[in-house]
Amino acid sequence: MSEVSYDALRAQAAKRDSEDELSAKRAEFELDDTVYLDGNSLGALPTVVQERVADVISRQWGQLRIRSWEESGWWTAPERIGDRIAPLVGAAPGQIVVGDSTSVNVFKALVAAVRMARDSGEGRDEIVVDATTFPTDGYIAQSAARMTGCTLVPVAPGEVHGVLGPRTAVVLLNHADYRTGRLHDLPALTAAVHDAGALVVWDLCHTAGALPVGLDEHGVDLAVGCTYKYLNGGPGSPAYLYVRADLQARFDSPLPGWNSHAEPFGMRPEFEAADGAVRGRVGTPDILSMLALDAALDVWDGVSIEAVRAKSLALTDFFVECVAAYVPEGRVEVITPAAHEQRGSQVALRCEDAGDVMRRLVEHGVVGDFRAPDVLRFGFTPLYVGFADVERAAGVLARTLGETGTGTGIAG
Amino acid sequence: MSEVSYDALRAQAAKRDSEDELSAKRAEFELDDTVYLDGNSLGALPTVVQERVADVISRQWGQLRIRSWEESGWWTAPERIGDRIAPLVGAAPGQIVVGDSTSVNVFKALVAAVRMARDSGEGRDEIVVDATTFPTDGYIAQSAARMTGCTLVPVAPGEVHGVLGPRTAVVLLNHADYRTGRLHDLPALTAAVHDAGALVVWDLCHTAGALPVGLDEHGVDLAVGCTYKYLNGGPGSPAYLYVRADLQARFDSPLPGWNSHAEPFGMRPEFEAADGAVRGRVGTPDILSMLALDAALDVWDGVSIEAVRAKSLALTDFFVECVAAYVPEGRVEVITPAAHEQRGSQVALRCEDAGDVMRRLVEHGVVGDFRAPDVLRFGFTPLYVGFADVERAAGVLARTLGETGTGTGIAG
Repeated sequence: MSEVSYDALRAQAAKRDSEDELSAKRAEFELDDTVYLDGNSLGALPTVVQERVADVISRQWGQLRIRSWEESGWWTAPERIGDRIAPLVGAAPGQIVVGDSTSVNVFKALVAAVRMARDSGEGRDEIVVDATTFPTDGYIAQSAARMTGCTLVPVAPGEVHGVLGPRTAVVLLNHADYRTGRLHDLPALTAAVHDAGALVVWDLCHTAGALPVGLDEHGVDLAVGCTYKYLNGGPGSPAYLYVRADLQARFDSPLPGWNSHAEPFGMRPEFEAADGAVRGRVGTPDILSMLALDAALDVWDGVSIEAVRAKSLALTDFFVECVAAYVPEGRVEVITPAAHEQRGSQVALRCEDAGDVMRRLVEHGVVGDFRAPDVLRFGFTPLYVGFADVERAAGVLARTLGETGTGTGIAG
Repeated sequence: MSEVSYDALRAQAAKRDSEDELSAKRAEFELDDTVYLDGNSLGALPTVVQERVADVISRQWGQLRIRSWEESGWWTAPERIGDRIAPLVGAAPGQIVVGDSTSVNVFKALVAAVRMARDSGEGRDEIVVDATTFPTDGYIAQSAARMTGCTLVPVAPGEVHGVLGPRTAVVLLNHADYRTGRLHDLPALTAAVHDAGALVVWDLCHTAGALPVGLDEHGVDLAVGCTYKYLNGGPGSPAYLYVRADLQARFDSPLPGWNSHAEPFGMRPEFEAADGAVRGRVGTPDILSMLALDAALDVWDGVSIEAVRAKSLALTDFFVECVAAYVPEGRVEVITPAAHEQRGSQVALRCEDAGDVMRRLVEHGVVGDFRAPDVLRFGFTPLYVGFADVERAAGVLARTLGETGTGTGIAG
């Protein structure tokens, strides 16, 4: 809490920013003097989006109109943009389609996985789901279980091993806990699920664009994710679905819309599923949002996800270091794991009056978010957050905590 | 085919345009000298969209970022925009939410309807579906039947009466046939389904914004529709779902995402459905596309859907009259019904070499579309199509048909 510690950490921040190979990327985003640590909720705006969407509206829609379905590549956008996301999550081309929300994609993935599991033998009637996951995954898993005659088995990720067995059809896991930022062990959990003869669906909302996922390398079966967090696609931008290449022929979608038909313009009464990732499409793609995402992905040109991960860990380490230096001991509890292999790209702090603290932080120009009942959540997006931001955020947090707190009478 | 007939029809077109109370609306769209008769596939761009979306991107997303979920009304956009569509389809507020694709909404509506039908008594295990409908409805209905243990009964709309009975759970019908433009009798069919103790889901893709639908007046149970045709929301803009107010408490969605939770930010593990139309939401709403639609709906300010219908019928009547006057008899067959009560807002012509003819029409500045194997489809959007456009389109069609045709050797 001394001035010395402030000066030393500020100097360290300046030095690290000057050595940061990703620092130039910040200029590709629309940012002000706010310290924006909520990119794990809504990524900042990449500058290129505005002009590209203006062209989509005025020229592609306004002038070419329906011709754009072919001439502007609208029709194939879901798989083309999927192929742009693929390298960020360690997938070869042809396995990802963009479209619908994460919830809808969880439904497709789970139902299709149950059907695949049953192809391989009867008796598989359990859907195991991460009980600590973002709630929508659990709600949708419950519906998928109900509609496929399965039983839902909610467990903490650490307990997955204990419930796997001959009845397990599919396991739905979040790669990182949205609240604590804990990163789960995707390779080991995937292998354990496979050993039990079941399939796994990973939700990558909180990791895609923040760290290497390695879908192909680790033999993941299916995966879903949103694109509005670390991929900066814009509010509610379309989600994506990954179906491993060798499973695609067996992917039997519960939402077989005309866009997943082998011959969509044949307008045939009988459904015949298209080959490949396209089978995961449903209805007409949402072009404005999809092409905003397409533009937003330009910021990844020349960026390696390994460099992003290295910077992410350095940022979160440094934040924890600054918080420890600036904040009185016991005022907050870091609930994000210290071990790198267990940490996503966020730091969560438990704090009794978290709702009030976050409101004041935002007023003081540091934007994170509050997750009920007592979590301050700070996301670190390596493409646009620097070390000086981190030091400043910790300093503002310390001052804010000094102003608030139960018993001070200031809160409210 | 004489010059006299051309002159007379042109004079009539000019007179009608001068008397058209909706003619000023055309200036609110981005149009060129093309005769755009494909608004039943993709509506033309309302001018206001460009500026509004630019603001959504640069200010709401770029500057306010996550604050916009509250401050810019993003979170409530699905129901707020639903309430703007409501008067166009004859619905009181609080019954429509916008989001997802038409296909996904068909799935929600059908599964929820089957569940409601079963609440009222066992033994209802048939989903009746319009066999002539746009194919995606049939594919999704097949999936809904499979996942609810129902049997799919595909019939032509004229044969619905004959298959209704104590086993009928729900009937899915298109208000207008996408190919022929035939308008089905929504009040009579709804009443017949209700007499059989079943529920009805109407697909309004080809009628919303083109003619009065009267959802509340006729006691429709559920309805879905897209917003990119006569509602001009942009390519793949979000669809909508109508659930009649008194059925909402029984609406049990197969896609219970976190946005349909009674307390979405409570992040509770147990699902508890929200009250009202919000129950039809699923995942995070697609804000850019949704707010483009919101802007596009401004063109309806001060417009009565009855005036739109009157002009639509006048336009389609006039097109048929011009085609009869200009095109050699037998060269095309009008397959859209002549009776007003059986006609949507399009005219479909059967023509052996329709694919080739449409390609040439487009080259000559008249844009309709081709539906395999032999249909020329022309949509008439009363807000921006005038009578002179109609006369010109018929004239270009006649000249084009003179240049093409099997046996002339010109086609190809």
